[in-house]
Amino acid sequence: MTLNREGSTKTVGLLPGERMDDLLTQELKIIQSSEVFSFSLDAVLLARFAGVPPRGRVLDLCTGNGVVPLLLSTRTGARIEGIEIQPRLADMARRSVACNGLEDRIYIIEGNLKELPALHGSDAYDAITVNPPYKPVGTGEHKGNLHQAMARHELGCTLEEVTAACARLVKPGGRVSMVHRPSRLAEILGAMSRYRLEPKRIRFVHSRVNAEANMVLIEASLGGKPEVRLLPPLIVYEGEDRQYTQELLDIFYGRKAELGDEGQREEGGE
Amino acid sequence: MTLNREGSTKTVGLLPGERMDDLLTQELKIIQSSEVFSFSLDAVLLARFAGVPPRGRVLDLCTGNGVVPLLLSTRTGARIEGIEIQPRLADMARRSVACNGLEDRIYIIEGNLKELPALHGSDAYDAITVNPPYKPVGTGEHKGNLHQAMARHELGCTLEEVTAACARLVKPGGRVSMVHRPSRLAEILGAMSRYRLEPKRIRFVHSRVNAEANMVLIEASLGGKPEVRLLPPLIVYEGEDRQYTQELLDIFYGRKAELGDEGQREEGGE
Repeated sequence: MTLNREGSTKTVGLLPGERMDDLLTQELKIIQSSEVFSFSLDAVLLARFAGVPPRGRVLDLCTGNGVVPLLLSTRTGARIEGIEIQPRLADMARRSVACNGLEDRIYIIEGNLKELPALHGSDAYDAITVNPPYKPVGTGEHKGNLHQAMARHELGCTLEEVTAACARLVKPGGRVSMVHRPSRLAEILGAMSRYRLEPKRIRFVHSRVNAEANMVLIEASLGGKPEVRLLPPLIVYEGEDRQYTQELLDIFYGRKAELGDEGQREEGGE
Repeated sequence: MTLNREGSTKTVGLLPGERMDDLLTQELKIIQSSEVFSFSLDAVLLARFAGVPPRGRVLDLCTGNGVVPLLLSTRTGARIEGIEIQPRLADMARRSVACNGLEDRIYIIEGNLKELPALHGSDAYDAITVNPPYKPVGTGEHKGNLHQAMARHELGCTLEEVTAACARLVKPGGRVSMVHRPSRLAEILGAMSRYRLEPKRIRFVHSRVNAEANMVLIEASLGGKPEVRLLPPLIVYEGEDRQYTQELLDIFYGRKAELGDEGQREEGGE
């Protein structure tokens, strides 16, 4: 597939229903489809929040159309692999990678994360990111659209399986970053604890400063010391007319290197 | 001991080093001592945050000088018991209760929470509050002041023991509310999970909106359904000159009935 980063979308071979979107960061482009998969704010925040090494190997589980690997490529020179169980989405992700000329840095694997350790060996990755499906099976998945149902519901993998895979695949001391729903916080931390993933940084995302959190970003390290930092709340909107906050715009446009390390540290006094 | 709510502090029998402070709520008074024990913001927030029934029995573990029972008495008609291991503090708490004329509603027990189930039976309480010592033993406790060392370090009880006591003493479905340090969040939720205390509401407290959290309020229910609400961040200060936020002042002055239920609910979309 030939590509042309400045060219028209025709040169990258869009399928029916697909469109080429702007990732708003360093002119990255991404193929999306409202029927199949479009990335959400969650993935953008994960890609900015996750701790990644400057070199080495990084893995993105449940990669969808590859949005997290694409965004991570602006923050690290590591080899980035993305795994996606749905052939249709893995194909979209591969074409997006090609369209940005990143085939030498991002590798999209079509496969099941439960089988990945066998394929790729354990302890292989310096860092792992994952934006797993949020909802347990049997909580209203849309029968008519398997693509969306699999991205949103735990049809292909449960939270427990995702966490187990992260722990098997990451090096000791390596970082695992996840975005999920706050309502499942206790389950997430429980699963991490069972697999020796020790939370190090947690950031809650609130649509407004006076709203409950609707997203949580968690970074853990394999076999780390048990002490976690609770970062400042990330507020999405402000004002009467729901404008994005300055911090959120900075994240969208990639003006913040790593989301969360700018927070004023607090020492537990007393 | 006779008392006089409007009278001078002499009528309540202050010991050397003690002073009578204002609790800023419905003219409540409390005996404090900078050498022995003074309550902190943590206790005030816990007393406002905790879910308490209008009637029944409520228990406050690690009650110190009784600040939480005194504040809770403005929010519930329940019988409130406070347990404190240090005789000196239990005595201060009893005198504060008397000074406010609340001897028929608040009962201070001098004892060890690890022995409490034997004394008082299990499943006895509708709600429990606890502001336990925050620091593990061996993290710089002040040898010279046992009162302060016991209030701040886990010398008399560990987080695990506190959580176990809460689970034994509360009725099924009853609420347990705790204030603690966010750095120990994973440990707290892990311990709660081992004793079937399911977190229902969590609120992080940040000194400023752009600061890491330095306090966490958690309400759990015994045997509850696993789904937790992450309430809006509670911000303590704002502005250049560190003024208290309006919400914090409302809490101090008891103008908010229950801290946390006013938050705008978020349904996890997607």
